[in-house]
Amino acid sequence: MVTDIEAKVIQAKRASIVLASVDTVTKNAALEAMARALDENRDRVLEANRRDVELAEKLKRKGELPQAMVDRLKVNDSKITGMISGIRDVIRLDDPVGKTIDALELDNGLDLYQVSCPIGLIGVIFEARPDVVPQVMSLCLKSGNSTIFKGGSEAACSNRTIFDLLLEAAESVEGMPEGAFQLIETREEVKDLLSMDAYIDLLIPRGSNEFVKFIQDNTRIPVLGHADGICHAYVDSYADLGKAYSVCLDSKVQYPAVCNAIETLLIHESAVDRFLPAMARIYDSAGVEMRCDARSYSILEHIDFLKSIVRATEEDWSTEYNDLIISIRVVDSIESAIEHINTYGSHHTDVIITENPLNRKAFTDLVDSSSVMVNASTRFADGFRYGKGAEVGISTNKLHARGPVGMEGLLIYKYIVLGDGHKVADYVGPDARGFTHRKLSKDLSETINRE
Amino acid sequence: MVTDIEAKVIQAKRASIVLASVDTVTKNAALEAMARALDENRDRVLEANRRDVELAEKLKRKGELPQAMVDRLKVNDSKITGMISGIRDVIRLDDPVGKTIDALELDNGLDLYQVSCPIGLIGVIFEARPDVVPQVMSLCLKSGNSTIFKGGSEAACSNRTIFDLLLEAAESVEGMPEGAFQLIETREEVKDLLSMDAYIDLLIPRGSNEFVKFIQDNTRIPVLGHADGICHAYVDSYADLGKAYSVCLDSKVQYPAVCNAIETLLIHESAVDRFLPAMARIYDSAGVEMRCDARSYSILEHIDFLKSIVRATEEDWSTEYNDLIISIRVVDSIESAIEHINTYGSHHTDVIITENPLNRKAFTDLVDSSSVMVNASTRFADGFRYGKGAEVGISTNKLHARGPVGMEGLLIYKYIVLGDGHKVADYVGPDARGFTHRKLSKDLSETINRE
Repeated sequence: MVTDIEAKVIQAKRASIVLASVDTVTKNAALEAMARALDENRDRVLEANRRDVELAEKLKRKGELPQAMVDRLKVNDSKITGMISGIRDVIRLDDPVGKTIDALELDNGLDLYQVSCPIGLIGVIFEARPDVVPQVMSLCLKSGNSTIFKGGSEAACSNRTIFDLLLEAAESVEGMPEGAFQLIETREEVKDLLSMDAYIDLLIPRGSNEFVKFIQDNTRIPVLGHADGICHAYVDSYADLGKAYSVCLDSKVQYPAVCNAIETLLIHESAVDRFLPAMARIYDSAGVEMRCDARSYSILEHIDFLKSIVRATEEDWSTEYNDLIISIRVVDSIESAIEHINTYGSHHTDVIITENPLNRKAFTDLVDSSSVMVNASTRFADGFRYGKGAEVGISTNKLHARGPVGMEGLLIYKYIVLGDGHKVADYVGPDARGFTHRKLSKDLSETINRE
Repeated sequence: MVTDIEAKVIQAKRASIVLASVDTVTKNAALEAMARALDENRDRVLEANRRDVELAEKLKRKGELPQAMVDRLKVNDSKITGMISGIRDVIRLDDPVGKTIDALELDNGLDLYQVSCPIGLIGVIFEARPDVVPQVMSLCLKSGNSTIFKGGSEAACSNRTIFDLLLEAAESVEGMPEGAFQLIETREEVKDLLSMDAYIDLLIPRGSNEFVKFIQDNTRIPVLGHADGICHAYVDSYADLGKAYSVCLDSKVQYPAVCNAIETLLIHESAVDRFLPAMARIYDSAGVEMRCDARSYSILEHIDFLKSIVRATEEDWSTEYNDLIISIRVVDSIESAIEHINTYGSHHTDVIITENPLNRKAFTDLVDSSSVMVNASTRFADGFRYGKGAEVGISTNKLHARGPVGMEGLLIYKYIVLGDGHKVADYVGPDARGFTHRKLSKDLSETINRE
């Protein structure tokens, strides 16, 4: 028996084949229709959101939902404007589908093209955040991927209203396939989705660490994202202290709740006496609790006015606080710092503060993280700041897409060989023809339509 | 308790960090030492292989091992010469590590580089084929990846002897880390390896479909490869029949036991009367059994001399014969052919025979396979023929690496940001600085070492 949810997934998978070859003009028209539909139906979105928020407030009063969740749920007119301009930003991005990545002549009249193409069907599972639907739907549509959305129950009305508006608008454009985008309601089980590895090519979970970890642990579908963000700053013996104060403060306090904020400060022993007391004052003024190893504690414990200095435990080195807390450790060499980062870190984002070119090279070479910074805040690790226009997520995977991921992470390639009746039998044995393997400068699109 | 096998895996993982930044000259010296060690110790390799083959012959006489397995196990002098020249081919390949993929100025003095780097630790699990060790070890070494090998018990002596020679040679070169390459013996369990997703970044299984499927089904580590190779030829209504005979014969019989040979022939109904009788004669002469749908059977059953014509069952459409058998189906349109391929195929390699540009474009756009051929044999889907020098495997994955995979499939990238004390706080809020996001043409390597 095909379940309701399975039927939706199968429909989206079939539509993905068609969506993969929809042309740029049609996709941009669908995106513009989506933007207009949101703009013309602001009242409907606000009304639906009001119902979600009312229910959430009730749950909050019963202590079943934190205030932060209620806040993230709220949609107002300026948030809708943000959704609309986000969709129009995606219209302006280059169509990434069908780009010739590489072209090689194998022999006379036998050409090989490596061409970008959509991944297929992407499952997006998110907690309450209604703005995920327009953002991800526009990125997936432009990159030619079908998408199954599964949102949190708290935002059920908002998600359904926004999704229906966008879907109707997109499908009203001639040439767009039906059923490429599906929303799965709360009552259906997320577990069903996680088992559909026969249809779903990639999962993108957006939410808390625990949420992402649950997804990763319960599916065979590849997951794009990260659970932990344990990032480090290392202040080298050759650090410029002015830059060190600036970068270490920003990396911790500019927005401590996010994954690319640092959790641990490592300091070379030859810099610690010069650097740490002043840095501790700066952190103290910003309300940062410091959890220190023996060496750093011995330096700071004599400074009277510091409010929050405690001893770190082994557990601190592998803890993501997501809060105004930092662990501090003194290391005897850059090698020890790198070893600490590769052992306790989450391969997300780490920074060295140094003026020494050799140490800069060693750190960027040997730290096994998706983003490595030199004299710049870890907070720069972000799709918008990296110039990607919009972000799908930040990946700590070692395959496919790593670091801040934009639309390029929603694509793979296929090989296309154009021949003229060529057979392999001619290329083997004693009288084998040789391959030319000559690099071509032409695009597949120039060739595939020629008479 | 750390087990023996876990200790080896951890050592290889630690060594992978160092190996990732070993320079090209050192890596090439290690490869040359490996090639020389094999050349100077041919007798030791042949002697070890003799012991494996003796044991295998005994098992064969008891009916416990097929002759094909014994044949694949055998190493002779010319096979050793092949291993040596394979290693020297890898010396000639460009070093793929540390290449600047993209470079972007974020703001004055704040530059972002996307740089290729090794994946880390790769597990290679293979059935009896001693030549896998030098081939994979040289590709992994050149691409800076540590490797754990797990070979079949039948080749235990050969694998151990070849591995020890190569390892000693590689580690004798100054600058090469110790322990980056490990061989796990037969008595240790492959199951242990499959559970080490905390250390192993990628598994490459090489062997039969069942073997690969077993690996895929029993690990959370990403697997590069493919289980099935159900490939199709579609003879369009606009086919040049000469090309169709040539491509359909070669795709089936040039080497039927391999994954990129076709299993199913689809024919447009308007071409079937012209094409099928002659094609059937060609297949018949080549000893190919034909399993036909109702329409094609009705055409062929009247041709007296054909030896092997039977009716196909539903199961035939999803069967990889790996043998001189082909299933044949008549379709009413190119859309039906594409639908059949996307439904029953394994997204490996498929070919259209046509002279019509629109159908050529529709087929290459809509067939969701890693290689799509136009008027050329599916047997061309191969790393060597695609000009990659050496092949790691053929992947039907939709993420990271797809189709014939060369050394590029053993790499990922990291982002490196070079700043001068830059903090995110300056780029947010009412007086936020803007990003320049200006494309740079310089390489990281030109920049990272400057004073």
